[in-house]
Amino acid sequence: MPRYKLTLEYDGTGLVGWQRQANGLSVQEILETAVERYCGVCVTVHGAGRTDAGVHALAQCAHVDLPREASPEVIRNALNQHVKPAAVAVLDVARVADGFDARRSARGRLYRYRILNRRPPPTLERGRVWHVGRHLNVEAMQEAARVLVGKHDFTTFRGSLCQAKSPVKTLDRLDVAALNEEIHIEARARSFLHHQVRNMVGTLKLVGEGKWRVADVAKALEARDRRAGGPTAPAEGLYLVEVVYAVH
Amino acid sequence: MPRYKLTLEYDGTGLVGWQRQANGLSVQEILETAVERYCGVCVTVHGAGRTDAGVHALAQCAHVDLPREASPEVIRNALNQHVKPAAVAVLDVARVADGFDARRSARGRLYRYRILNRRPPPTLERGRVWHVGRHLNVEAMQEAARVLVGKHDFTTFRGSLCQAKSPVKTLDRLDVAALNEEIHIEARARSFLHHQVRNMVGTLKLVGEGKWRVADVAKALEARDRRAGGPTAPAEGLYLVEVVYAVH
Repeated sequence: MPRYKLTLEYDGTGLVGWQRQANGLSVQEILETAVERYCGVCVTVHGAGRTDAGVHALAQCAHVDLPREASPEVIRNALNQHVKPAAVAVLDVARVADGFDARRSARGRLYRYRILNRRPPPTLERGRVWHVGRHLNVEAMQEAARVLVGKHDFTTFRGSLCQAKSPVKTLDRLDVAALNEEIHIEARARSFLHHQVRNMVGTLKLVGEGKWRVADVAKALEARDRRAGGPTAPAEGLYLVEVVYAVH
Repeated sequence: MPRYKLTLEYDGTGLVGWQRQANGLSVQEILETAVERYCGVCVTVHGAGRTDAGVHALAQCAHVDLPREASPEVIRNALNQHVKPAAVAVLDVARVADGFDARRSARGRLYRYRILNRRPPPTLERGRVWHVGRHLNVEAMQEAARVLVGKHDFTTFRGSLCQAKSPVKTLDRLDVAALNEEIHIEARARSFLHHQVRNMVGTLKLVGEGKWRVADVAKALEARDRRAGGPTAPAEGLYLVEVVYAVH
């Protein structure tokens, strides 16, 4: 069966996340249903990573084995037809080698977290940003972010449901930037622990508010204890922006 | 009674537009209800212009006379509290002279129209853009837009419900720009006819698709007949971006 790589965009609002679950609709179930409507067979769609409930994607990746060859464009358009009315879109389809695995072949993941930092509530960006009314000090957040970059034991920022074998990860980038009324935090690593990005963002927000100093972040990281870290930022501000592969 | 100028952002989805109506919820009713909850009196909130059902605003302006003085920030925060759960936000409040009138004092309006020009459907931008799957030629649209700039009788682009005394308007700018997968069309004038922006956008889209040539737009404009123009672009892609005043 020929293998295809899918590049996916979705609005995570109201979904239970990437992975198929009994308690609600997932991106995986939406895609597998679309494939079944298109090809008439039940197959598994394998994602590069499991985004949580409410988390969005600008370019999640997945692979799927289809029962027959077709042009990538035909597959993309057919899946987009069958995905309706869900807010999931197949941006791109590519024929890949049988050895390609969306999760295992990935060399890196890039996430973006959007904070709307203004007193008035969001309207058009509702469900797309974390609304923080109190002014955040971006420079302090940038300084604190630098403490987290590199290879560390990230137990302090690890969700309790995390299934990773080791809490040691290498954070390649953690950039904080102000864009008009928004603050964007971009995190790049080969892979992340469960809730790692949202827990780091929740901690950086404490620094931005002046409740924590940069040294407190270093101390929290060294504690290797989830209770030493800041709260988990809400899912609605998080976007999986890119999954990086060596060969496409 | 002291007069205040309000700067407003809203998601027009599901609203009947700016103006209070019997058949659904309007931005005006939402704001007047918020003022009543805050001050205990029923007053009219006067908008700079009547956005249609489904049209969004990044910075609509309005004026309102309140029964007592208060600091602009206190008024803004109170109105934002009372506006809930509607997707309307008061971005700014300013004390203005009694002679200030949101509509009559306005020297110009800037609208933006967003087209998502890609084959896959929108997900995160659903209800925020006009999805056009077929590739549009931006350069042809730019050329056609130049035909419409200036002082003209815009009867061809005038909605049937238009209440303006004259169909002659001066279009200061009509800019078409490509931004990644989107095409943004910005229109600036002292004032517009009803549906004028959406009717111009619907016509430019015909040019972008190659169904109309630039000369056809000139001919349509000269016809001074709505039936000679292109279709009305959907409301969901339209944003009132700015209302310009001589003095703030």
